[in-house]
Amino acid sequence: MKKLINSPDDVVADALAGIAAAHPGLSVDAKERVITRAAQTRVGKVALVSGGGSGHEPLHGGFVGPGMLDAACPGEVFTSPVPGQMLAAARVVEAGAGVVFVVKNYTGDVLNFRMAAELAEDEGLAVETVLVDDDVAVQDSTWTAGRRGTGATLFVEKIAGAAAERGASLTEVAALGRRVNAASRSFAVALTSCTTPAAGRPGFDLPEDEIEVGVGIHGEPGRSREKIRPAREIVASAMAAILADRPMEPGDEVIVLVNGLGGTPLLELYIVFGEVASLLAARGVRIARSLVGDYVTSLDMAGVSISLCRADAELLALWDAPVNTPALRWGV
Amino acid sequence: MKKLINSPDDVVADALAGIAAAHPGLSVDAKERVITRAAQTRVGKVALVSGGGSGHEPLHGGFVGPGMLDAACPGEVFTSPVPGQMLAAARVVEAGAGVVFVVKNYTGDVLNFRMAAELAEDEGLAVETVLVDDDVAVQDSTWTAGRRGTGATLFVEKIAGAAAERGASLTEVAALGRRVNAASRSFAVALTSCTTPAAGRPGFDLPEDEIEVGVGIHGEPGRSREKIRPAREIVASAMAAILADRPMEPGDEVIVLVNGLGGTPLLELYIVFGEVASLLAARGVRIARSLVGDYVTSLDMAGVSISLCRADAELLALWDAPVNTPALRWGV
Repeated sequence: MKKLINSPDDVVADALAGIAAAHPGLSVDAKERVITRAAQTRVGKVALVSGGGSGHEPLHGGFVGPGMLDAACPGEVFTSPVPGQMLAAARVVEAGAGVVFVVKNYTGDVLNFRMAAELAEDEGLAVETVLVDDDVAVQDSTWTAGRRGTGATLFVEKIAGAAAERGASLTEVAALGRRVNAASRSFAVALTSCTTPAAGRPGFDLPEDEIEVGVGIHGEPGRSREKIRPAREIVASAMAAILADRPMEPGDEVIVLVNGLGGTPLLELYIVFGEVASLLAARGVRIARSLVGDYVTSLDMAGVSISLCRADAELLALWDAPVNTPALRWGV
Repeated sequence: MKKLINSPDDVVADALAGIAAAHPGLSVDAKERVITRAAQTRVGKVALVSGGGSGHEPLHGGFVGPGMLDAACPGEVFTSPVPGQMLAAARVVEAGAGVVFVVKNYTGDVLNFRMAAELAEDEGLAVETVLVDDDVAVQDSTWTAGRRGTGATLFVEKIAGAAAERGASLTEVAALGRRVNAASRSFAVALTSCTTPAAGRPGFDLPEDEIEVGVGIHGEPGRSREKIRPAREIVASAMAAILADRPMEPGDEVIVLVNGLGGTPLLELYIVFGEVASLLAARGVRIARSLVGDYVTSLDMAGVSISLCRADAELLALWDAPVNTPALRWGV
């Protein structure tokens, strides 16, 4: 294993030190392992808190800032943060209007965020939870009952975050987050495995000429092992899975995320995006907004995920609202 | 070789189709292979044109837009674009105030941009060339006489682009670009090789426990092969090379770019940034601005480059000026 780390035990602590040094707009509590905005939450604004295992950067810490999250709780690599972190985050950012937990659907995260919500409610905080489960590849998986939460987390955090910034209530922000999740679907393909610092070797074996179709963001098995094929065919099968689950009509508008899993060059992501755009154009579906890059990663895994969010004017207006985070910035 | 491509011959064409589909703010001439802003250059504004081999995305196409480049010319992977592309770009974006070519110091690029400049001048266009040669690792290299141009290209394109936007003259924009290059130094370390689609196998061999110290962005040899070490030590040797070449004094201000080469997780880049920040703090050097992410890549190479630009108030003001490109966006 070759990695730019000091020791497998210090990966998250050292990365947090780097995040703190790189982003004056963030405040990093190294002891509690909570990343918040440097500025306090405005009184009366609903606070958004997310988190999950590390190794998916920029998710979630890179989405903390005006217009998006108020706080993120990074766990160890591919390991849920603990309830104490989430509670600490909620206490810091709560500003009288309640807290929304945005939780990717992995059993550990779900249980820990649930416990944190109970503890926070015991302290008198109002908490709503938005579960993200957009990955259509498989029902139930290594660490998940139901569907996995992946790329749509970005859609939920951006759009719900914008609504909170505009003064939406706790109920409204949570309902909007759930609506975005319900409107979103994702599918991922891995060309290689990924290596956690602690394990020091790839999490699964993938032969030199095979890909994992429907992979999860920790390397969870997908639908099938297949031979590597041209990008056009790989994208076609991923899009077929997404559109079978959530049909789109001519005239529909979508936000598209073509997301690199960490080890894939941007050049290839653009090739994938071109194929996605062709397929959607052939169906009369309009790409209203898009992102191409590494947003929800799996360490050094080579591969791509495609996420679509069926959008209406309200969602697009919230998508376009100003955001100022390390990984997403516009309108400011 | 596993890549998300349709065929090795179509990589650049297919990626350009994706870029066109993803970025309504850009205009892609697929035939001439020129990426420009969708809006015409404002009359009287100096136009900035850059380009180079593909495989370094988002460089250069991702830096086209208001506040930065007017046009980019992508060559085949790791291959210089041809003079005809550069001439076509210059013709399209020239707006009465001349054209600045920003050229990374590789022999092919230098010769082709020189020929393009001569052709453009024959047509009556005024052209200045800014050569970027910031990489302190080696003097002369596989494809370079003198030093290679790497991460500082981003500094030059951002700062000179901002000056052009503010109405600086051709001479002023070029002089500023040269000043930024002279104030910048870079050093890169590779953990793995990279694989071009045409070759289909890694460009060089790097044993499982070794790194290439001082590597170039096409995998050119660096200063030495060394055993993998903790990030702290790797960063210390890279920073020592930079600071030996361009000493910094307490109180100096720098712009820092910690740049992933394509296959390195953001988590590791933050660890590297933390080490860079510690070393600079120990010397009393202030990080005025910073970027952490993949900006000047080498396909799927795992590794990192560190670039510093010694900045004054003028350069920082131009750095902070609004920019609206696919890869850099702020103030808009």
